Amino acid sequence: MATILKRWVRQRRLWVALTLLVIGMVPSGMALGQEAPSAESVATAVNYVWVMTAAILVFFMQAGFALLEAGSTRSRNAGSVFMKNLMDFCMCGLAFWAFGFAIMFGGTGLAPGLEAGNSIVGTSGFLLSGEAGSTDTALLWFFQMVFAATAATIVSGALAERTRLDAYMAYSFLISAIIYPVYGHWVWGGGWLAELGAWDFAGSGVVHAVGGVAAFVGAKMVGPRKGKFAGDGTPRSIPGHNMGYIVIGTMILFVGWFGFNPGSTLNGNDPQIAVIAVNTFLAGIAGGVVAYYVQLVRTGKADIPVTCSGIIAGLVGITAPCAFVDNWAALVIGGIAGGLVILGAGFLERRLGVDDPVWAIACHGICGLWGLLALGIFANGEYLEVAGLITGSTDTFVAQLVSMVTVVAWTGLASVLIFGFIKATIGLRVSEADEDAGVDSTEFTQPGYVFETVSN
Amino acid sequence: MATILKRWVRQRRLWVALTLLVIGMVPSGMALGQEAPSAESVATAVNYVWVMTAAILVFFMQAGFALLEAGSTRSRNAGSVFMKNLMDFCMCGLAFWAFGFAIMFGGTGLAPGLEAGNSIVGTSGFLLSGEAGSTDTALLWFFQMVFAATAATIVSGALAERTRLDAYMAYSFLISAIIYPVYGHWVWGGGWLAELGAWDFAGSGVVHAVGGVAAFVGAKMVGPRKGKFAGDGTPRSIPGHNMGYIVIGTMILFVGWFGFNPGSTLNGNDPQIAVIAVNTFLAGIAGGVVAYYVQLVRTGKADIPVTCSGIIAGLVGITAPCAFVDNWAALVIGGIAGGLVILGAGFLERRLGVDDPVWAIACHGICGLWGLLALGIFANGEYLEVAGLITGSTDTFVAQLVSMVTVVAWTGLASVLIFGFIKATIGLRVSEADEDAGVDSTEFTQPGYVFETVSN
Amino acid sequence: MATILKRWVRQRRLWVALTLLVIGMVPSGMALGQEAPSAESVATAVNYVWVMTAAILVFFMQAGFALLEAGSTRSRNAGSVFMKNLMDFCMCGLAFWAFGFAIMFGGTGLAPGLEAGNSIVGTSGFLLSGEAGSTDTALLWFFQMVFAATAATIVSGALAERTRLDAYMAYSFLISAIIYPVYGHWVWGGGWLAELGAWDFAGSGVVHAVGGVAAFVGAKMVGPRKGKFAGDGTPRSIPGHNMGYIVIGTMILFVGWFGFNPGSTLNGNDPQIAVIAVNTFLAGIAGGVVAYYVQLVRTGKADIPVTCSGIIAGLVGITAPCAFVDNWAALVIGGIAGGLVILGAGFLERRLGVDDPVWAIACHGICGLWGLLALGIFANGEYLEVAGLITGSTDTFVAQLVSMVTVVAWTGLASVLIFGFIKATIGLRVSEADEDAGVDSTEFTQPGYVFETVSN
Repeated sequence: MATILKRWVRQRRLWVALTLLVIGMVPSGMALGQEAPSAESVATAVNYVWVMTAAILVFFMQAGFALLEAGSTRSRNAGSVFMKNLMDFCMCGLAFWAFGFAIMFGGTGLAPGLEAGNSIVGTSGFLLSGEAGSTDTALLWFFQMVFAATAATIVSGALAERTRLDAYMAYSFLISAIIYPVYGHWVWGGGWLAELGAWDFAGSGVVHAVGGVAAFVGAKMVGPRKGKFAGDGTPRSIPGHNMGYIVIGTMILFVGWFGFNPGSTLNGNDPQIAVIAVNTFLAGIAGGVVAYYVQLVRTGKADIPVTCSGIIAGLVGITAPCAFVDNWAALVIGGIAGGLVILGAGFLERRLGVDDPVWAIACHGICGLWGLLALGIFANGEYLEVAGLITGSTDTFVAQLVSMVTVVAWTGLASVLIFGFIKATIGLRVSEADEDAGVDSTEFTQPGYVFETVSN
Repeated sequence: MATILKRWVRQRRLWVALTLLVIGMVPSGMALGQEAPSAESVATAVNYVWVMTAAILVFFMQAGFALLEAGSTRSRNAGSVFMKNLMDFCMCGLAFWAFGFAIMFGGTGLAPGLEAGNSIVGTSGFLLSGEAGSTDTALLWFFQMVFAATAATIVSGALAERTRLDAYMAYSFLISAIIYPVYGHWVWGGGWLAELGAWDFAGSGVVHAVGGVAAFVGAKMVGPRKGKFAGDGTPRSIPGHNMGYIVIGTMILFVGWFGFNPGSTLNGNDPQIAVIAVNTFLAGIAGGVVAYYVQLVRTGKADIPVTCSGIIAGLVGITAPCAFVDNWAALVIGGIAGGLVILGAGFLERRLGVDDPVWAIACHGICGLWGLLALGIFANGEYLEVAGLITGSTDTFVAQLVSMVTVVAWTGLASVLIFGFIKATIGLRVSEADEDAGVDSTEFTQPGYVFETVSN
Repeated sequence: MATILKRWVRQRRLWVALTLLVIGMVPSGMALGQEAPSAESVATAVNYVWVMTAAILVFFMQAGFALLEAGSTRSRNAGSVFMKNLMDFCMCGLAFWAFGFAIMFGGTGLAPGLEAGNSIVGTSGFLLSGEAGSTDTALLWFFQMVFAATAATIVSGALAERTRLDAYMAYSFLISAIIYPVYGHWVWGGGWLAELGAWDFAGSGVVHAVGGVAAFVGAKMVGPRKGKFAGDGTPRSIPGHNMGYIVIGTMILFVGWFGFNPGSTLNGNDPQIAVIAVNTFLAGIAGGVVAYYVQLVRTGKADIPVTCSGIIAGLVGITAPCAFVDNWAALVIGGIAGGLVILGAGFLERRLGVDDPVWAIACHGICGLWGLLALGIFANGEYLEVAGLITGSTDTFVAQLVSMVTVVAWTGLASVLIFGFIKATIGLRVSEADEDAGVDSTEFTQPGYVFETVSN
């Protein structure tokens, strides 16, 4: 009885505390016997709220990728495309929890539990255990995990319609555990590229070029879809099945990018977030408008997938330099990306014989590299004193070139090894019969679509 | 003329005030003759912004439920499923405005206008009138309303493809006016379960178990879809019509859950929000991965609806304990939920003869109860000193058991009465002819889909 | 070598600074040698975070409009509808960057670089150049641009299924460069309507009535879809192809409206945001419920497009008065809008012979005007001392009437000129053959849908 009474008393005390806490009638912590809020504590709270909001927006991009990729492929494989976009962040989450985060941020001292490490690879924070389970580390982990998941999911589009689900899941785990965090450590984890003066504000290189280069290796190793190339190597068009999915996917990605880029301040008290948002928007629309008109001139018709690729290309291109450039430069960077993605996709398909159903390699790989370069050219020397060629400084430009070579070399090499390992063990590609039938009807319990009501 | 002049002067004064206010060049209120901001006032502002953002995310879950449920059912009833997911939050909004909120929070003193009340039922704040129209009360109402709407919408999936729209709308009103707020008052409104020491951080019980138990009663009383069970009671599979909707719906729900769980701090100044987000994410992916592999072993194929149910199950399971457990425990809780949902759905279908097209009962009912129990097991004693079995304390565990029994008993009993009342008056089920034809073509002015362009 | 060393040192210094900055362990700016945070600086940060979040939500509404409009039209034109909703914000972004923002806000002094101007038209801030590239201006631009994009996109629905893409893109540019910002300047830019005492909190007039009136002019000038009216002028129903898109589009718009209305405080430190959210929600559901029951009584069936139009109508109606009215009044305003939209759509179709496939004119034009009027009636005199008829004051009511006449006259006149100019140059309408075939197959490289797997 005394126990019950004590429990009630304790519960009531907590209830009163919670009551006072709610909606800030008493500032956080006070009711529980902690200190009154200070400007410092509230500034930290603003950072938490901002980083959380941004991370949630970035996570929402998973739905954008899923729709964009599914719409760009044939309906017989739609379920498979959606499923891959779902499973990759599941695998990435586990990998980044167990290994990736520690490799990337161990040693940065950015948060408790990340104390050891060196300029090559992080060595603390595995399994988010011990001190790494603190609130500050949790915030950093959550934000960085959704970025890792973006890099992982980029690969799925390039491999669509002929890759085994289990092989793709294995790759998702390994890119998130090893490939992504190592280069990430070099640039964002205080590694040797950061020491060299290479910059990448929100991840044109760390996220998009890594994803794009891995997608290139994967698409090359798994080979083109059956029927994509004629006997003489001439590419054939395989139209996607749903333009609406492509547009809505692009819009969702655009929305998410406002978490991706402005959120990368990791700081809600930094008014630069507004400049970053404007630059992000302008580069995205410039990419779309340029791609739209280029394709209109080439074909005489409006092309939804190409226009959407132009928008994504512009967004990828501005991701590295978004905080460092003037808004006119954002338009230039995005516009160039919008042309580059068409050139690049044509080159990949016609010259290199790569079949990439969603232009992931051109959008994320090529324009990711362009973003790193553009930073070295257009950085205006104001924010964090990062200065590109237009200020007369060559230091950053040179460091960016080194970073570009590095991301291609590292991601390319590591991807060859990992895809090779998967090919030798699980196998990369579905059988020809399965590909003909569509993987939805062979690898999955149910078809992607079952329509009963089709009229007219 | 003097009037016009006076109006101009007043208007100009306000304009200047607004001008100064905008984007904080003068802090809020000062321009209008109020005080300068203090750390306390800004801490409150952070709470407002955080709670608003979280509530909007939770409201977005309505779109997730609509897609998940529509994708899991046949295309002939797609319009109906979407419409029910739209009308239920309309009915819930009216009910929670008029009655529900007052019953749930009257007497908590959580906000102005909520002064009276007792440990059984709230008695103040009806119609949000009088003092209850204040800004603090509005914030609390908005956040709590979107939770009530979630509980209401859970039921729609279990009743899909054979329930009358008007009956469902009536039920939506009544669950939001009575069933949800009463148990909600007991747990979150300072009622007897709170006094007993039962905890439910974000609503595994208050939202999900209530919705799931109501769904069970409803599905049982409305009966299975025609053709669901063979003459000997053997269940047959009725495949859903759109795997993409299921995946996108699940992703939107996952996104919304980052408002649901971290937002339940009601406090943007509480750094625990980051830990909650990480636990939520880990439990969701653990549920998905376990369900994926369990089903793969059982069937040899990848199963999209089951994997998505595993994710939802993991998220439901972590909802109660999300703030109180370590991240390893979140993985365990979510993983167990991912297996439990498959077991539970099979038990419901094969043993109890319940036809639940979207596994709402297994996901929200069974895993909601599991969430309450998991809190009693895994709470680590740190946050708010809530301690589960793993700390050696049994108090919370026992209180959780009482809460579990209570939510089943109360929701079950009240749902039987309300569904029985609706059955006796409006009727629950559409005619057999309507069910055969699909309710879109009988209850609605237009079919759910009209495709003109179908090619191969 | 000395250069490299210097670069390393600088880089390391910045790294340490960034490290300290991250997640607020040292408050913003301090690490870079700026001042410690004050309550004032953090209050500004809260405004930034709030305005950014709200703007992103408003931008997300583009996806809602795209889905709502595509679902309301035939599948043969689905790709076209999606594309128009994509290109209009691209064109709007360029127009608002180059011209619109300066015309609307130049002279308000709301942010640096906006110093000159008068009560008719703004004259500074073109191309966001010079001082107008500051962070405060960027924040204001970003928020205002997404509103301009909303006004632009409203027009697309009314013109769907028969308007040339290039003509629509030209119009999108011109409405955003000229029509929208001029009236916007009069009301929100300190222009003559603001001086007169006219109010429009979040844009029933500035955004929705402008879009709706322009849609009316456009729909009238481009003419009805072939087959919409019988020889004797009797309208025929042309059902939309996807009810799910309509519902999800409506839900996304509803979600975005919580950025649209509460965000229009431009101030996260203003607790009125909670009241605004509640009023917005209540008006939306009241509109939906009234429209649902009105149509149920008229037809005996549930009507998804009409119910969704009712929700949109309620949201449009509350947009102007959302901050100034009690929650009971929000229900009344929304409910009236829900009836008005049905009446208005019938009047437009049957009396004026206007073919508006998505009821954009009734929802945004008519209910936008209703919102301006409702403010003049129901404003309770509390927030910013804005007082409507119910307080016994007639000043605001009269000013609202002037504003209503003005928005119709200005937008109508300017739209006639601009649509006339486009008609005379580019041409407004696709050929009859193209319209018969569906514009997806004539203006576009690929059809909107290609389904391979259709089974029963």
